[in-house]
Amino acid sequence: MSAAFTLSLDAMGGDAAPSIVVKGAGLAHVRYPNVRFLLHGDEAQIKPLLDAEPALKSHCTIHHTTEVVSNDDKPSQVIRSGRQTSLWKAIEAVKNGEAAGVVSAGNTGALMAMAVLIMRTLPGVHRPAICCLLPTKVGESTMLDLGANAQCDARNLVEFAVMGECFSRAMLGLARPSVGLLNIGSEDLKGTDVLREAAQILRGSHLDIEFKGFIEGDDIAAGTVDVVVTDGFTGNVALKTMEGTAKLYSSFLRTAIKSSILAQIGMVFAQSVLSQVKARTDPRRYNGALLVGLNGIVVKSHGGTDALGFSNAIGVAVDMVERDLNTAIGQDLARIKAEQAAEAPAQVGS
Amino acid sequence: MSAAFTLSLDAMGGDAAPSIVVKGAGLAHVRYPNVRFLLHGDEAQIKPLLDAEPALKSHCTIHHTTEVVSNDDKPSQVIRSGRQTSLWKAIEAVKNGEAAGVVSAGNTGALMAMAVLIMRTLPGVHRPAICCLLPTKVGESTMLDLGANAQCDARNLVEFAVMGECFSRAMLGLARPSVGLLNIGSEDLKGTDVLREAAQILRGSHLDIEFKGFIEGDDIAAGTVDVVVTDGFTGNVALKTMEGTAKLYSSFLRTAIKSSILAQIGMVFAQSVLSQVKARTDPRRYNGALLVGLNGIVVKSHGGTDALGFSNAIGVAVDMVERDLNTAIGQDLARIKAEQAAEAPAQVGS
Repeated sequence: MSAAFTLSLDAMGGDAAPSIVVKGAGLAHVRYPNVRFLLHGDEAQIKPLLDAEPALKSHCTIHHTTEVVSNDDKPSQVIRSGRQTSLWKAIEAVKNGEAAGVVSAGNTGALMAMAVLIMRTLPGVHRPAICCLLPTKVGESTMLDLGANAQCDARNLVEFAVMGECFSRAMLGLARPSVGLLNIGSEDLKGTDVLREAAQILRGSHLDIEFKGFIEGDDIAAGTVDVVVTDGFTGNVALKTMEGTAKLYSSFLRTAIKSSILAQIGMVFAQSVLSQVKARTDPRRYNGALLVGLNGIVVKSHGGTDALGFSNAIGVAVDMVERDLNTAIGQDLARIKAEQAAEAPAQVGS
Repeated sequence: MSAAFTLSLDAMGGDAAPSIVVKGAGLAHVRYPNVRFLLHGDEAQIKPLLDAEPALKSHCTIHHTTEVVSNDDKPSQVIRSGRQTSLWKAIEAVKNGEAAGVVSAGNTGALMAMAVLIMRTLPGVHRPAICCLLPTKVGESTMLDLGANAQCDARNLVEFAVMGECFSRAMLGLARPSVGLLNIGSEDLKGTDVLREAAQILRGSHLDIEFKGFIEGDDIAAGTVDVVVTDGFTGNVALKTMEGTAKLYSSFLRTAIKSSILAQIGMVFAQSVLSQVKARTDPRRYNGALLVGLNGIVVKSHGGTDALGFSNAIGVAVDMVERDLNTAIGQDLARIKAEQAAEAPAQVGS
């Protein structure tokens, strides 16, 4: 039975908002009957949708606002002019203590910019990162940053390692998640100065982190480590490359099945194979990326997901609130900072 | 019928050398009966292998040397002390005009360093890149750089675009390959200054290049463009992520098949499905990366490939020699340089 708290939802974010948001909350309500929802958005659109979900309705409050952030809006602009938008209001509710966390399927850049401005980062965190779970050969791994910071220094990567390790413990219940830095593996050319510096800090640190050193692109899906740490550019390219390759593989599979009558007959019996593989690689199952490093729980849902996917993003927020992720991160970062200050001031970076 | 010329092979490079090199040459000989081979390496090991390939033997000359570059050797070291190695001798044969191109399954970093030192880069090329073909949903695409240059400036990326476009025309016979710059797609954060500068040069250029702007990770497998241009760090991570994801998908497939008797019965009929998918994603089929931008044809085979894979790497070298890739690249680069000098000297970079 889940604890009783409130989550703030940007009801107007996402391709099929507010419909998938309300339906997603309806599915989440079945799993987390004690969680309440604040729905920020246009009451005229939200109310009829809520009327169709009587079980959910008594657990919801609508906060009416008509302004919305679109996917084309520039983050730099909406943080100035967007204070009446459903996204801003949804984040503000966490800052004001009305909700324990926020979920949005809207504009990622705007969500990050507003969340940083309204909530500020956790003490010791210079840049928040986008973090999510991925399917691997041996289970699930955490990867970050997935696109918040196109360029990172060694200090950022070390902070990502700490935050990703805490996320992995909270989401997957691992006692001692292993951590790897994503690099290229070839002789003299092995990566950049930033990566070598980050590895040096992580190796030297007395933080209780199981640091495995450098890993390569094929280690992500192999599940070689529990936490894959990388800059937002590389992480975003790798994540989307995984999505694209999975689609390619299933398209090859469909083409091969269509090409032979015998194969089609066989696949009638082997139908479970395709549905099992589909289930294990279903992007909805992995929907819900955490904006980690903020003074509050902020979860980004894929904009194009459906109600089931959105309910999974709510599930990530519930897990993070219940497991008090930010307290764990704060403690670890305070520890690493104190150690660095005491032992090797020159290594900390500026 | 292929033209008559000679290729130089590093017989000692690769996990199972010299066996896979000689057997690979044997397979290549069937496809390219007019091509001759210089085999650089230990005659005592190579000769018995050649005796087992009588058809090939008359098309081969052994250049005896006992020194070899190992995978652990540092490129910076072997370019000083490795002048008697099979790798050095194999590259030198191209420089001396004894061979039209070289193929090695050995140490990538050493191959690149030695090739740059012995052959020098093409006029107008500041850094060579590693370039290969990848399977996509709609056919095959070219991607570069796959790991030669961990950090690149805009000028490097523009040169990669020109070289990749020429490679694509030569390998795939495309009249007008489309070119895209790999980036992350999100709002304000869209990439780095280097990428924006490279895009500006490519858009402004009167080179006859079909530049499609920025693409994202999932566009690689979708085949959105014919040529994917990126720095060596991102390209290497993306390539290995694709390999890892394809393995993950096929492992999910095998697990699903094993989990049900009905599925196993079905798969007896649908066996062709698995073998078709396997064939389309077979890494041996895509073996053979070109080190593009050098004064000579240099092809790198995967170190762990088999004879079939090595013969495909030889095939890449044959195609490049026959289609006179370097003349095409030289002409395009001279044109872009002349244009930039005439039109916008400030844009050229240093």
